[in-house]
Amino acid sequence: MKEIKLIEVKEGILSENDNKAETLRDELKKSKTFLLNLMSSPGSGKTSLILKTIDVLKDEFRIGVIEADIDSMVDAVSVTNHGAKAVQLKTGGFCHLDASMVEEGLQAINYERYDLLIIENVGNLVCPAEFDTGAVKKAMILSVPEGDDKPLKYPLMFSVCDVLVLNKVDYMELSDFDFQAMKNRVYKLNPEIKIIEVSCRTGQGIDEWGEWLRQEIKSFSCITLD
Amino acid sequence: MKEIKLIEVKEGILSENDNKAETLRDELKKSKTFLLNLMSSPGSGKTSLILKTIDVLKDEFRIGVIEADIDSMVDAVSVTNHGAKAVQLKTGGFCHLDASMVEEGLQAINYERYDLLIIENVGNLVCPAEFDTGAVKKAMILSVPEGDDKPLKYPLMFSVCDVLVLNKVDYMELSDFDFQAMKNRVYKLNPEIKIIEVSCRTGQGIDEWGEWLRQEIKSFSCITLD
Repeated sequence: MKEIKLIEVKEGILSENDNKAETLRDELKKSKTFLLNLMSSPGSGKTSLILKTIDVLKDEFRIGVIEADIDSMVDAVSVTNHGAKAVQLKTGGFCHLDASMVEEGLQAINYERYDLLIIENVGNLVCPAEFDTGAVKKAMILSVPEGDDKPLKYPLMFSVCDVLVLNKVDYMELSDFDFQAMKNRVYKLNPEIKIIEVSCRTGQGIDEWGEWLRQEIKSFSCITLD
Repeated sequence: MKEIKLIEVKEGILSENDNKAETLRDELKKSKTFLLNLMSSPGSGKTSLILKTIDVLKDEFRIGVIEADIDSMVDAVSVTNHGAKAVQLKTGGFCHLDASMVEEGLQAINYERYDLLIIENVGNLVCPAEFDTGAVKKAMILSVPEGDDKPLKYPLMFSVCDVLVLNKVDYMELSDFDFQAMKNRVYKLNPEIKIIEVSCRTGQGIDEWGEWLRQEIKSFSCITLD
């Protein structure tokens, strides 16, 4: 527990958020730190995916995690026990992160020491979609038990993300999840989005996810070298 | 579609919410309308539980549903196709309902015609817990695939609810969900909460849920008769 920093964050002024996020992105370019904003419903598997990502990429990149939770440190403890560095942002009731909160996390973890920093946002498909955190890319998880209708109900989240990780595909048999219907709904909102099917439990698809992230980090690193 | 009313709602002033909620509760007592506020993460099974509730209780009570979604009417269509009356509140980005929004829903559905009205709140474990909607009782769903650690991460929701419906218990085998650990975490936050295990898919536990709700409605109706 003692290695995890706990920061109590307060919500910034909404109108200033975009400017703050751009400033953060500029700083991250200078240090070649790829910041990923990972969002989903509660229990879709954000922490599990982060642990799998650490397994796959830890030999190639220096990885850190900025955990956000309303009132707990359990995820930061999991990440730390898994051998990566984590800081915990305690949002104290806020249902999303904004750029000011992320800035506190970046400073607390010393962002310039990392190649890849992952923000585990608050479990929520609504508000996190509205706030630019300064991240280079936005990822979301949808898990099979949540149902194929979620793009209809939370369209902004599906619209703003660069990649959709469909988790818990090992539950597909037990479920009436219609994969094609889900894909059609997602592509209608966001034709450019990448969809990757995984199961964090069985390991299925984790290599594909790791490869997508690897290429994004490398491409970001090349761009920032120019 | 034409039988479903669509109301675009705006957020009321937070400080006035509690007064508004109390006023609504007084009105509902006069008409003996039991209002249930049903909350959960996206995809936990709120709509499925409502459809099962209609099946079990429709011969005893006049049932209506107030659906809330950011931007869709799919749930209201499901309820209407199932033979119950529904109105759809379109929150337009807000991540929760407050008492003013619920008031609009109650007026739109003509609340005094019903014995049981169920609010299907926005899928979100955070903000809906903070807002009194005027409901007589608060129910939440946790589904097995979301994990047993949710009480640690979203303590307020588990603290404010009268009943916790644990849904998708048919997924228990595939999952590492620790039922005893979840119960311990929930009872620590809320020793009075009732926990009911169900599977909306198989029907397991739906009778117990129906019986709990039946007794609550009858008891409310007796109290309001005094």
